[in-house]
Amino acid sequence: MAASALLKSRVQRASYLNKLAKAEDLISLFPNGTYIGWSGFTGVGYPKKVPTALADHVEKNNLQGQLKYNLFVGASSGAETENRWAKLNMIERRSPHQVGKEIARGINNGNIKFFDKHLSMFPSDLVYGWYTKDKPGNRLDVAVIEASAITPEGGIIPGASVGASPELVQMADKVIIEVNTASPSFEGLHDITLSDLPPGRKPYLIMAPEDRIGTSYIPVDPEKVVAIVESDYPDQTQPVSPEDEVSQGIAGNLIEFLQHEVQHGRLPKNLLPIQSGIGNIANAVIGGLSKGGANFSNLKVWTEVLQDSFLDLFDSGNLDFATATSIRFSPDGFKRFYDNWERYAGKLLLRSQQVSNSPEIIRRLGCIGMNTPVEVDIYAHANSTCVMGSRMLNGLGGSADFLRNSKYSIMHTPSVRPSKTDPTGVSCIVPMATHVDQTEHDLDVIVTEQGLADVRGLSPRERARVIIKKCAHPDYQPILTDYFDRAEFECLKKGMGHEPHMLFQAFKMHQNLAEKGTMKINSWE
Amino acid sequence: MAASALLKSRVQRASYLNKLAKAEDLISLFPNGTYIGWSGFTGVGYPKKVPTALADHVEKNNLQGQLKYNLFVGASSGAETENRWAKLNMIERRSPHQVGKEIARGINNGNIKFFDKHLSMFPSDLVYGWYTKDKPGNRLDVAVIEASAITPEGGIIPGASVGASPELVQMADKVIIEVNTASPSFEGLHDITLSDLPPGRKPYLIMAPEDRIGTSYIPVDPEKVVAIVESDYPDQTQPVSPEDEVSQGIAGNLIEFLQHEVQHGRLPKNLLPIQSGIGNIANAVIGGLSKGGANFSNLKVWTEVLQDSFLDLFDSGNLDFATATSIRFSPDGFKRFYDNWERYAGKLLLRSQQVSNSPEIIRRLGCIGMNTPVEVDIYAHANSTCVMGSRMLNGLGGSADFLRNSKYSIMHTPSVRPSKTDPTGVSCIVPMATHVDQTEHDLDVIVTEQGLADVRGLSPRERARVIIKKCAHPDYQPILTDYFDRAEFECLKKGMGHEPHMLFQAFKMHQNLAEKGTMKINSWE
Repeated sequence: MAASALLKSRVQRASYLNKLAKAEDLISLFPNGTYIGWSGFTGVGYPKKVPTALADHVEKNNLQGQLKYNLFVGASSGAETENRWAKLNMIERRSPHQVGKEIARGINNGNIKFFDKHLSMFPSDLVYGWYTKDKPGNRLDVAVIEASAITPEGGIIPGASVGASPELVQMADKVIIEVNTASPSFEGLHDITLSDLPPGRKPYLIMAPEDRIGTSYIPVDPEKVVAIVESDYPDQTQPVSPEDEVSQGIAGNLIEFLQHEVQHGRLPKNLLPIQSGIGNIANAVIGGLSKGGANFSNLKVWTEVLQDSFLDLFDSGNLDFATATSIRFSPDGFKRFYDNWERYAGKLLLRSQQVSNSPEIIRRLGCIGMNTPVEVDIYAHANSTCVMGSRMLNGLGGSADFLRNSKYSIMHTPSVRPSKTDPTGVSCIVPMATHVDQTEHDLDVIVTEQGLADVRGLSPRERARVIIKKCAHPDYQPILTDYFDRAEFECLKKGMGHEPHMLFQAFKMHQNLAEKGTMKINSWE
Repeated sequence: MAASALLKSRVQRASYLNKLAKAEDLISLFPNGTYIGWSGFTGVGYPKKVPTALADHVEKNNLQGQLKYNLFVGASSGAETENRWAKLNMIERRSPHQVGKEIARGINNGNIKFFDKHLSMFPSDLVYGWYTKDKPGNRLDVAVIEASAITPEGGIIPGASVGASPELVQMADKVIIEVNTASPSFEGLHDITLSDLPPGRKPYLIMAPEDRIGTSYIPVDPEKVVAIVESDYPDQTQPVSPEDEVSQGIAGNLIEFLQHEVQHGRLPKNLLPIQSGIGNIANAVIGGLSKGGANFSNLKVWTEVLQDSFLDLFDSGNLDFATATSIRFSPDGFKRFYDNWERYAGKLLLRSQQVSNSPEIIRRLGCIGMNTPVEVDIYAHANSTCVMGSRMLNGLGGSADFLRNSKYSIMHTPSVRPSKTDPTGVSCIVPMATHVDQTEHDLDVIVTEQGLADVRGLSPRERARVIIKKCAHPDYQPILTDYFDRAEFECLKKGMGHEPHMLFQAFKMHQNLAEKGTMKINSWE
């Protein structure tokens, strides 16, 4: 195969060009049961050609359910790849995070063996051999990694995400590199480290978001590279979810709290490195940091993923530096980023998820960690993953990496969500979380559009009172107060009142929702 | 007051001897509502004279409930001090861990506002001001710290524990030092660091259990020292809980697993640094490492607390080095330790709990973390703290510090415990944990005397099958299997089968226990 001029300009390792292949010619590398690693994180930087060729192959030859793979990706990849794989019943096992209707369907109907995992821990468990312990040498068979360019050493310069790619390459017997020529080269934007095994592990010598400790590319043993494929379309991202009144209300409460903490000397004027997720609440919070009465400046960001609102924060002049493992901009956001590369590139660094989500670094930097749950209970346990205790949404992600280790561990959520029949049918504040991903020992602050509960240093019964009072929706305040009062009375009487529950009625609001379409129960009797 | 010759030999800072006082003369430093920090951890190294004098004062003057204090200790202190305080209604607020009948009673009857916290996090949250946010400058009023000696700089050489003493001293306006002359000086046995505030925090440059990064004493501003009190009796510890058939069965299963991991190249021959708790299971495991078929040698230990079994492991010649934040030997164990000081001292190091339990270091070293829960559920969530979801036992301790960050995160438990009327009335494997301290994302291995479930890389439904099969007691296997089968059937049908639960019956076994004295239900109908 002859390489295009554009591809040649991206691949500085000449010997790789001899391995140039078409994706559809690589099918034989993927027999049924193959253990596969893909690059990608939050829907950017994922391989496009090989997964699509495999899906086409299955579809064309009616091989649904006959070619099933064990698929490991740092977090979510593109909908047109893994979601299509799920639809074609090509996924036997998947970890540690996913986004997509079809893949969620496969997980919840029992077709896909999925397990979610702390995103910081996934790459190290992979290197330990935990996920491949039945394979010879605990190895993955093939890693398919998207590159934006290749260095003379044969190293991979990733695109808009690093994720678990360093460790996937480390653990794979064979590596296929998809060089994406539809997006620019991201050279210089990465700081890459591999994972050593204990007892040979070293400290991450990072004292500030801008510190570099690695190489600008993922080192690869060139003999493991079995094919280079040119990839010709960019990451398929979605437009930004717009702020609304609720998310602005939450952001307002949160920013007031941060100002209060600065006033009381518990936070520096320029705060501490900020972690923020994806979605409209995160957008409103990041947007609010330099709007209205809030005049935070010289901010720094240590987070997992950057979305468009950070571009605005850069443009406001108030953001000095941001680092993450992925930049998941909207199509408009990517255009803006590429068009103004020089403005942003010097203030931005992408790292592996092992580093971006590292408990070591998050705790050292004293991050302000913010996340959105499914539900929070009155004692400050939070459910981040499983609706009604059973139905998987997307997975744990990095929520617990940040919420356990940040200086400020903050859960922000609307106080209610609509059910099918009641606009306030689902309370996000519940008596007992139906699944616990963040424990009461991890959270400092719960905030809704109703208000903010600062639970630092409070006993469980104190926490319950302040969470119900400040965070619950007025429709649910009397119901939750009644639950707590009754539980407290009964449990104190029995001498078991540290964290009072009516254990056998704790999910009655959820039962009411399942049976009657709303969590508004008539009584706890 | 004149200092005894023995006291003079321990206090190398001459100016401190001018501050010599009797405990009973210090009562006025403790008005109602005082925020107090004590040294101590797992019942060793706690102050004895001042707490006793205050308790005497309350008792003699009938001041029960009129002098109530906010009490912060690294973990548990001595029964004759804090347990007596609880009995005299002297504790308003307590964190982060406790042991004692009276204090548990006070917590569970609503008299004591207690919150448990990750032991690694407690000192840093203290330094952040989280627990003193209503006090001027976020300060503690008084710290009462036991020393085994005082350096010429005025620094404190602790005794058998370090715990949170460095940070308690750091945060206190006044410091009272109790110099214990009934036990030997522990000079040279400690490696002490203080806690910096972000953004000024530095890495812990520890790459192996024997690495030193601090000073041999707790630095103190001499002007903060308001009194020196001589203390004249040693730590009141308990005899070792003996191994039994169940704990030996658990240890046997666990050691077989470690051998298996070595054989498969996932663990070095001398393992990785071991963390082990207190109690008979821990004793049996540590004892078993160099007994029978197990020939592990050149072992190292990175743990929170050392008990007598580690002395045996030293004596067997197979333990090269051990570090912890406390040595909680039995009275016999302490005698053995003091009598053979030269043999052990060079192989032992005590650090602050911020360091011994540091996620940064535990993850870097790749520890083998082992802990005992109240109950574990079929999906590998564990309850470490609250019986029936409500009644506090002792607190979280360092369980989650180690179980989240270790390379091997292991929960060991008997498969059943007796209820009042049924010798196997309580199953430690349950459908859903009534309180979650360790999540499904944290645990790798569950082990009982029945067998060992290796859940690494498994989806929740796979985990449930292997945990029920390998770990549950035969009396409960059919009950748990029936729960899981029914839950799986119902949830898959509804398309919510990632982690199948019959949510509104999940605690039926617990309800049966409460009502009928056994978890053996007749059916799930």
